[in-house]
Amino acid sequence: MTLPESRDFSYLYSEETKARKPSPLKTCIHLFSDPNIIFLGGGLPLSDYFPWEDLEVNSPKPPFPNGIGAPITGENVMQSHITKLEKLHEGDIPLARSLQYGLSQGQPELLNFLREHNKLIHDMHYEDWDVLATAGNTNAWESTLRVFCNRGDVILAEAHSFSSSLAAAQAQGVTTFPVPIDENGIIPEKLEKILDNWTEGAKKPKLLYTIPTGQNPTGTSLDDDRKHEIYRIAQKHDFLIIEDEPYYFLQMGEYIKDLTIRKNKSTNVKLVHDEFLKSLAKTFLSIDTEGRVIRMDSFSKVLAPGTRLGWITASKKLLKPYLSLHEMTIQAPSGFSQSLISGLLNRWGQKGYLDWLLGLRHEYTIKRDNAIDALYEYVPQNPAFTINPPIAGMFFTVNIDASVHPEFATTYKSNPAAVEQHLYEKVIESGLLVVPGAWFITEGNTVPAQPASSTENNTPNEIFFRGTYAAVSAEKLREGLKRLGDMLHKEFQV
Amino acid sequence: MTLPESRDFSYLYSEETKARKPSPLKTCIHLFSDPNIIFLGGGLPLSDYFPWEDLEVNSPKPPFPNGIGAPITGENVMQSHITKLEKLHEGDIPLARSLQYGLSQGQPELLNFLREHNKLIHDMHYEDWDVLATAGNTNAWESTLRVFCNRGDVILAEAHSFSSSLAAAQAQGVTTFPVPIDENGIIPEKLEKILDNWTEGAKKPKLLYTIPTGQNPTGTSLDDDRKHEIYRIAQKHDFLIIEDEPYYFLQMGEYIKDLTIRKNKSTNVKLVHDEFLKSLAKTFLSIDTEGRVIRMDSFSKVLAPGTRLGWITASKKLLKPYLSLHEMTIQAPSGFSQSLISGLLNRWGQKGYLDWLLGLRHEYTIKRDNAIDALYEYVPQNPAFTINPPIAGMFFTVNIDASVHPEFATTYKSNPAAVEQHLYEKVIESGLLVVPGAWFITEGNTVPAQPASSTENNTPNEIFFRGTYAAVSAEKLREGLKRLGDMLHKEFQV
Repeated sequence: MTLPESRDFSYLYSEETKARKPSPLKTCIHLFSDPNIIFLGGGLPLSDYFPWEDLEVNSPKPPFPNGIGAPITGENVMQSHITKLEKLHEGDIPLARSLQYGLSQGQPELLNFLREHNKLIHDMHYEDWDVLATAGNTNAWESTLRVFCNRGDVILAEAHSFSSSLAAAQAQGVTTFPVPIDENGIIPEKLEKILDNWTEGAKKPKLLYTIPTGQNPTGTSLDDDRKHEIYRIAQKHDFLIIEDEPYYFLQMGEYIKDLTIRKNKSTNVKLVHDEFLKSLAKTFLSIDTEGRVIRMDSFSKVLAPGTRLGWITASKKLLKPYLSLHEMTIQAPSGFSQSLISGLLNRWGQKGYLDWLLGLRHEYTIKRDNAIDALYEYVPQNPAFTINPPIAGMFFTVNIDASVHPEFATTYKSNPAAVEQHLYEKVIESGLLVVPGAWFITEGNTVPAQPASSTENNTPNEIFFRGTYAAVSAEKLREGLKRLGDMLHKEFQV
Repeated sequence: MTLPESRDFSYLYSEETKARKPSPLKTCIHLFSDPNIIFLGGGLPLSDYFPWEDLEVNSPKPPFPNGIGAPITGENVMQSHITKLEKLHEGDIPLARSLQYGLSQGQPELLNFLREHNKLIHDMHYEDWDVLATAGNTNAWESTLRVFCNRGDVILAEAHSFSSSLAAAQAQGVTTFPVPIDENGIIPEKLEKILDNWTEGAKKPKLLYTIPTGQNPTGTSLDDDRKHEIYRIAQKHDFLIIEDEPYYFLQMGEYIKDLTIRKNKSTNVKLVHDEFLKSLAKTFLSIDTEGRVIRMDSFSKVLAPGTRLGWITASKKLLKPYLSLHEMTIQAPSGFSQSLISGLLNRWGQKGYLDWLLGLRHEYTIKRDNAIDALYEYVPQNPAFTINPPIAGMFFTVNIDASVHPEFATTYKSNPAAVEQHLYEKVIESGLLVVPGAWFITEGNTVPAQPASSTENNTPNEIFFRGTYAAVSAEKLREGLKRLGDMLHKEFQV
């Protein structure tokens, strides 16, 4: 079956993208590999002068029988040897190439692995999609803003969203308009109502920025059904969907409170690959029929943040302005990162990488369960406190009805934000850091005449704190959450 | 002696910089290292799950007795071992840290090396300077534009300059105003005249973008005396100086045509470190008394381009908005790049690194001499052709009086650009790529009422081609330049 081609969305580009002239030096770069041409066109240093001859690397070996955090010794070691000039393994990127200029899209061996990986995860419905290497999703999101947005433009984001992503937009003079969410993510009906009632004459949003899986900060995950609805609304109101998915592979499934049931289920945690793939949430990319979705993936949460490497998947048309921007910003991700990640992934193979992701999910499931167990144990059992066990990601939240605080009406003058700030100070005093929900509020403060539905709030006194179970050991986690519970008991006198 | 503090130039910031709110998450990051706090504040994955245990690296060993491009075997090998958790050598950055989030300014071990290196090179006249790691000078320049410039702003640049740098500014809606240059770089008198006569009411330039050493594309280097003059003009007209110095350490000195004299001199090429340091051009940083200079250094030309690592040196005040921008763009350079470069440089030591730079300069001196020898041999010996032997960098130019072309007035209608395009096609036909000067023209096309002096041109029919001697072997270089000479002889019938 021949798939259709993607649509042309270039009318959504920023002035900057429209004005960006390709470097004339790029018009002759094809002559670099022409054997009949002596190429004195660019300032490329000889690789003879790169002071790294080779890298020998010890990594864990699939299928990681002792778990992915196990010591890397004996039979569990996979050795890689990346050299300057040779390819000792298919998929290796010799340092002479990765450390040279060129190939802003990314090194072919790495891109090929990512394309094959993508095919396992997404069910693509248009022909001309591709991938582009990025310096991680922070970089990819900032580039997205540059590619599409002018000062004064409006974008949509979950009503609570990742503060750095919001701040990047706001600094560029882009208004972030909040979309109501609940425990299953964006509420499509509310999104549609907002857009149907959008003030005549006001700029309509160009982009929806969403973290569908294990959302930061709420920990929620977007229903597959809702994704279809949101995609339909995107078509109706003509905006692009930017799916920022660093936590996509940390899909632990539902939290099971009953230990016996959990234990029975946990024997199934190590699913076979087909079941694992089937269990993953449907992606916006898999729904997209016309190239309206731009997906940002990152190795930060599944390999290591400091790799500063990720990739965008989108139509080839939409990747072009990113490539032109990259040529004037990062040029390309670090060659060391590309050689080391390509060396690792191509040795592991697609199957080995799935083993790794399965192992990682297993670890995070244990962490999540530990955290939620402790929360149920220590947080006051009172309707004013809601624990939200996440099914994906690194974050949990504890939601609190601030009006239940004994001094709500007096000391805090019925202002939930004041209670939140007070509790934040108290929790630090107790020896724990979790962060207040106010830090993540999406504020669309410059859109004229917002439709009423956007500001409606069924729980006006609700505040929350975000914590992570990713960063510390099980013992520390439990101790930390006990401190949280103790503080709440004392403060709320419950 | 106590040095003064830098001035506050924050009034030159862009709207974006002024609007950029620090991430609230950064306000609590100091608690991360507080032993009394259990930190559940950020989504930091455990380093147990980073799938790289260690890196063993073979590099050349100082003092590089056989030259820096010599095979790395036997006694010439320096082995480094970078591990996940341990510091096997002072200055090593364990992977658990370099591959984690945090430290957007750069890893301390690397920054310390760069600060010490800076002290060897620059004579700083204010107290509060520092360094910030970047993803190379392309990234650093683009960030500079974001930090300071709004749409409609004007910056100054050499009349011919690096096309990607100009294109980055133009895409952002920033006008690049050309400053006249000659064989010694920017002509201060002309710069001053332009600014003294700047049209009343027109926006005055915020920045001067300059590549002082081995300028791209002209290969020229800016006189020390002229730097003082330019700095004085910068103070008078209140703009910042951005010195983009990727080629700074490729200062080969004057080309000596006479082989006997050259040979006598070449025994002195391997200077002792003090003499080497003294021989280097004075930097704008060394002239700067108030923090008006922002210097961009890069490892691209001295270690390898794909490291995507460089650093900015400036006042701590001016580094702040860069850091805030980085937190929303690159976050930090690749951890692999930082660990590998810090591991290398700290093992080499400051002295070993100077040995490397000396060795590199030696290699480039040979390359430069080969190129210029061949040009003098093959380019027509006729006043219409000027060879400009560079004293630094990777580039040479051949300047041509296009009016001498037999068909100048007829086929090309007295248009030198048409001759240039024709010669470009002919040179490719001959099997060589050098690139036309037109690709590098700084066009300030939207500044209203430019002073006449900016467009004055004493040699209106002069065109040039830029070549590099960096990228190919001596044999290929000679063969390529023979092709150039043959083509010119034939075309100009001389």
